[in-house]
Amino acid sequence: LVDFDPTEHPHRRYNPLTRSWVLCSPHRTKRPWQGQEESPQGTSLPPYDPKCYLCPGNARATGGTNDNYTSTFFFENDYAALKPQAVAPETNQHPLLQSQPARGRCYVICFNPQHNLTLAQLSTVPFSPEEHIVPIIESWRTIYRQISVENPFVKYVQIFENKGSAMGCSNPHPHGQVWSLDYIPEEPSKELASLKEWCRNPVNQDEKINLGALDDQKRPSMLLTLAKLELTTEGQPRVVVANEHFVALVPYWAVWPFEVLLLPAKRQIRHVLEMTSSEVVALAQILAEVTCKLDNLFQCSFPYSMGVHQQPTEKSQGEEDDSAQFHVHFYPPLLRSASVRKFLVGFEMMAEPQRDLTAEQAAKRIRECADRHYLTTMK
Amino acid sequence: LVDFDPTEHPHRRYNPLTRSWVLCSPHRTKRPWQGQEESPQGTSLPPYDPKCYLCPGNARATGGTNDNYTSTFFFENDYAALKPQAVAPETNQHPLLQSQPARGRCYVICFNPQHNLTLAQLSTVPFSPEEHIVPIIESWRTIYRQISVENPFVKYVQIFENKGSAMGCSNPHPHGQVWSLDYIPEEPSKELASLKEWCRNPVNQDEKINLGALDDQKRPSMLLTLAKLELTTEGQPRVVVANEHFVALVPYWAVWPFEVLLLPAKRQIRHVLEMTSSEVVALAQILAEVTCKLDNLFQCSFPYSMGVHQQPTEKSQGEEDDSAQFHVHFYPPLLRSASVRKFLVGFEMMAEPQRDLTAEQAAKRIRECADRHYLTTMK
Ligand SMILES: O=P(O)(O)O[C@H]1O[C@H](CO)[C@@H](O)[C@H](O)[C@H]1O
Ligand SMILES: O=P(O)(O)O[C@H]1O[C@H](CO)[C@@H](O)[C@H](O)[C@H]1O
Repeated sequence: LVDFDPTEHPHRRYNPLTRSWVLCSPHRTKRPWQGQEESPQGTSLPPYDPKCYLCPGNARATGGTNDNYTSTFFFENDYAALKPQAVAPETNQHPLLQSQPARGRCYVICFNPQHNLTLAQLSTVPFSPEEHIVPIIESWRTIYRQISVENPFVKYVQIFENKGSAMGCSNPHPHGQVWSLDYIPEEPSKELASLKEWCRNPVNQDEKINLGALDDQKRPSMLLTLAKLELTTEGQPRVVVANEHFVALVPYWAVWPFEVLLLPAKRQIRHVLEMTSSEVVALAQILAEVTCKLDNLFQCSFPYSMGVHQQPTEKSQGEEDDSAQFHVHFYPPLLRSASVRKFLVGFEMMAEPQRDLTAEQAAKRIRECADRHYLTTMK
Repeated sequence: LVDFDPTEHPHRRYNPLTRSWVLCSPHRTKRPWQGQEESPQGTSLPPYDPKCYLCPGNARATGGTNDNYTSTFFFENDYAALKPQAVAPETNQHPLLQSQPARGRCYVICFNPQHNLTLAQLSTVPFSPEEHIVPIIESWRTIYRQISVENPFVKYVQIFENKGSAMGCSNPHPHGQVWSLDYIPEEPSKELASLKEWCRNPVNQDEKINLGALDDQKRPSMLLTLAKLELTTEGQPRVVVANEHFVALVPYWAVWPFEVLLLPAKRQIRHVLEMTSSEVVALAQILAEVTCKLDNLFQCSFPYSMGVHQQPTEKSQGEEDDSAQFHVHFYPPLLRSASVRKFLVGFEMMAEPQRDLTAEQAAKRIRECADRHYLTTMK
């Protein structure tokens, strides 16, 4: 039997968060590409676009007008996928035809008044993460706090950003979204169940070595264990960047070619409101560094979907949610260049996710990218 | 409390096959689209392309040469994601960093020698499903039979087709793929578990009414129950097309806008080898009708991923796989027109799938499309 070489042999890796497997075929990057090419987003947008429904002072699609905002600004989505209205559920459903009404409120967050900036660019002079990204995190905190108070039916707050036309984003103005829901949706619900089960199992010896002295009764969060494990592994093969409070890494079980997972590195932070002000600043810094390095990888505005997972809101918390750990996922689709993406189709849809390079190869390439944005350097 | 109206109110629907939920926001089709547009595939390809590595007699990327084939032709993939080589697994893995070697063989099936034809076009004069689609199904059967004999390590045979550049297909020559594996991958494994659990639960009264007299000891396959239920529901709101042996429908829990599920309508067919010759012909006919109607919907070569789920191969069968039911999924991405697709991004990746029209609305639109291909009609 040949010895296993992860850069050569097809293998599956296990995702303990979603409890599912991904197929890794590292030799596949060698095949030529003759398929669809993306058109990378132009970099010559104006700082203000009179037709943009997100720019300060402009009219929106359904009648409202934006404030003349000067920092981060949020408003309720004009085309919300969920509404706060309560609806009576259908009764007597066949076991194969089951539905339930869904309630919620959806918000749009304009990151910055300037139309032609992205999180990545906000990291670099004349901008700074402290001044320009902290307000975005503060808006997440404000929404999370207000929603639970004003809409007691809300159980989960899903914060996310779709960036770039390749990710279905229809407006380049830097913005994210928040969808709040009267239920815990599939993905966080799977993750919360795994996190909970992890905490209930006894600590094993390997983890003790990495984590130091521990109270045997309470096993630390799975994601805190992972952060410490990755930071203490020789050569940190999957770490992209780390600071005092957070670490960004390519998870061992990454699906997207340059997927990144951003984790608290020191302690359990169950949701956005539990962060100290120095943790908020550290989060702003690491968000800036990750997005800047991704842009520098192929010298383009790197498309991605980014999303926050955290504890359900106070009203829905049971004792069982106490094991939650705040974290941020980045799912960027590009594979080979600014114009060639990975398609998760056919086999991936029908069978299971498949990737073409190892997590370690991806982490090394992102890590080696500069911390200064390529557009600044080019000037 | 307002009464529930599925065409107006956001709701979740339950997928009993994967045991997960999808969010349905039917009012959302009203919002304007300013995002990315696809370039629909050109219809003026030559019947033979000397540079195509799938055309008869041509050289392939890594040295082989195609037969001068005149019907369906298959060969082993030159850039296979899996290899038959056995590799020793790694030992002593941390619980958060687990992998296992993956073995398999991958095949490419050229549906037809003619470079510029698709399944949809093979449905219409001068072609016919009997003559031009039956050989494709026969190649699935040949591969399924041969693999289990020649590669005893194979446990699952995943048959699929990626069609169109929007689905990561890099060659318009009509072709599908088969990836065989030494494990049952995530999706079929979830489905097989649900099918098995269904058969073990007692028959309920509703099902008896629809299915007629039944032996109380053995509950019929979940998917056979569904087929009969959909065919006997007044007005068949989710049925797209049906024939003597099969039915194609938009599942109640569809994720993709015009998703289609193709099911045996009469009896349990666990895998491709269990079909009678008249069932093979009926399958060819319904595959032709579904793909032709989809092409006619937006008058374009409709992109999709199509895949077969069935019983694992003989070697891996336990008693528990006896509840499997052969079926075909179609996941087509287009939403509004030949150039505007649905993006399953942000919320869908981080939280759960979301769709913008109901399954019933989608089924009606596909059902009303002609059975004669628009390109033939236009001539
Ligand atoms: O093998 P192909 O057709 O070159 O590649 C296509 O199908 C594969 C299997 O679904 C995917 O992994 C690839 O991302 C996709 O581009
Ligand atoms: O709401 P937007 O940005 O218009 O739309 C985008 O994000 C949504 C949430 O991820 C998706 O459902 C849409 O398919 C996508 O185009």
